[in-house]
Amino acid sequence: MVEMPLETVSETRAHGGTQGVYRHDSTQTGTPMTFSVFVPDHAPGDRFAVLWYLSGLTCTQANVTEKGEYRAACREAGIVFVAPDTSPRGEGVPDDAEGAYDFGLGAGFYVDATQAPFAQHYRMASYVTDELPALVAANFPVDLDRQSITGHSMGGHGALTLALARPAQYRSVSAFAPIVAPSQVPWGQKALAGYLGDDRAAWRKHDAVALIEDGARVAALLVDQGDADAFLENQLRPELLEAACAAAEIPLELRMQPGYDHSYYFISTFLAEHVAWHARHLAR
Amino acid sequence: MVEMPLETVSETRAHGGTQGVYRHDSTQTGTPMTFSVFVPDHAPGDRFAVLWYLSGLTCTQANVTEKGEYRAACREAGIVFVAPDTSPRGEGVPDDAEGAYDFGLGAGFYVDATQAPFAQHYRMASYVTDELPALVAANFPVDLDRQSITGHSMGGHGALTLALARPAQYRSVSAFAPIVAPSQVPWGQKALAGYLGDDRAAWRKHDAVALIEDGARVAALLVDQGDADAFLENQLRPELLEAACAAAEIPLELRMQPGYDHSYYFISTFLAEHVAWHARHLAR
Repeated sequence: MVEMPLETVSETRAHGGTQGVYRHDSTQTGTPMTFSVFVPDHAPGDRFAVLWYLSGLTCTQANVTEKGEYRAACREAGIVFVAPDTSPRGEGVPDDAEGAYDFGLGAGFYVDATQAPFAQHYRMASYVTDELPALVAANFPVDLDRQSITGHSMGGHGALTLALARPAQYRSVSAFAPIVAPSQVPWGQKALAGYLGDDRAAWRKHDAVALIEDGARVAALLVDQGDADAFLENQLRPELLEAACAAAEIPLELRMQPGYDHSYYFISTFLAEHVAWHARHLAR
Repeated sequence: MVEMPLETVSETRAHGGTQGVYRHDSTQTGTPMTFSVFVPDHAPGDRFAVLWYLSGLTCTQANVTEKGEYRAACREAGIVFVAPDTSPRGEGVPDDAEGAYDFGLGAGFYVDATQAPFAQHYRMASYVTDELPALVAANFPVDLDRQSITGHSMGGHGALTLALARPAQYRSVSAFAPIVAPSQVPWGQKALAGYLGDDRAAWRKHDAVALIEDGARVAALLVDQGDADAFLENQLRPELLEAACAAAEIPLELRMQPGYDHSYYFISTFLAEHVAWHARHLAR
């Protein structure tokens, strides 16, 4: 096994397990990357399924780790929960030209960028699907044959697109208030143009609705969306996912949650249910 | 009813209820005060029991509101959860002379100060036990005949001392890693001397162990304490509470939690159990 050194930022006992925060030097991004891992207590030799959680714009791994309320459910289900950062960071990593929140730092959109000056560091797709799983498997009691993925907003986009592109890697996918069709909304158009260039054909591999239209499939899909979410109409547009799944006969469970907004109050209300839903798929 | 204007800072749907943050001008502290309230969904006319949560050093109402993981349990039990701030704040409010974290702003210790220059604003005991309950009852669906109280660290000290001093007001009291004997530990000695002066006789009314030694009683008491808490030996000293309760025949349930520290990872692990414990006492 290749040695992959890992720096422990913190390890804290929580909910009958260990909530850790770790840092390592990523070969994909060329920067130090921070991520969090919750591991339930276990006997030596036990291996858990792993649920990846991809965060939204402006977030780091810390938001869900502090506010997500997932640990009790993960201990109950026997799931290791991993939350990566949302972009490379540090000196030399290019940011949005005007420092906007929706591109660059904190806004990697889970793609491998092809455009200068972003292509060197912004390799979040490969980081999340290849490098980080190998690192986690080398350091934590997980079974990479049992992976599922979820995420919020930009991270919901990440979960959907990565799972659609790699159906053999993830047994199930869910999302909270995801950007379902980045090619058709302002956040996504800015990000995909910036990271991938103006050729819209290249965007389709990073757009959940386009991926489904182009033949990608997942076995099951759970989406929660608050109907009081300020970004619902202009950025998220779950009706586009609903139409694509209907046409493709993908069994989408889209739950419109009355009164809920885009915040972690929404996520923390339903994340335990997502953990239990993934656990059922991971047990098969 | 006296009019008590309340400013809504935010109201967010969460866990089948409303998590609010509010601000008002306190007559006790002479400053604006911020607090949070979680109210489960209910029918018109319904009234809930109320659980007060007092926070620890350096905290505001925000820490437990974001990290406490109490909402699902409060919705289940039918309890309104209120978290006040830990001190007056704002221009003209005196702070620790050297800006230390353990006195002054963020460190009111839930006493009514008698010493200049603190006596004017630092009236957290009267604020938490009198003014805030009246304000909450005037604005939220609560039944003040059913109050219980809990808190963390300095707030555990607050919960214990306020409940011991007002056994008719609170049906049950619990605490997380409380300062049980402030007269005997550095945090408490600094705070009580600063707010109450050098006469140690005055301190005994704000020291849980001394209150019990002097005859105060509560019907039941639940305390969780992590055994990996960095403040255990020098500041918290649960063995002093254990001895006082044994001598006074107070049924203390002291749970030493192996591996847990002083953080919200510890609190969030056990807060739902405290909510359920209080609910049993509030149902009687």
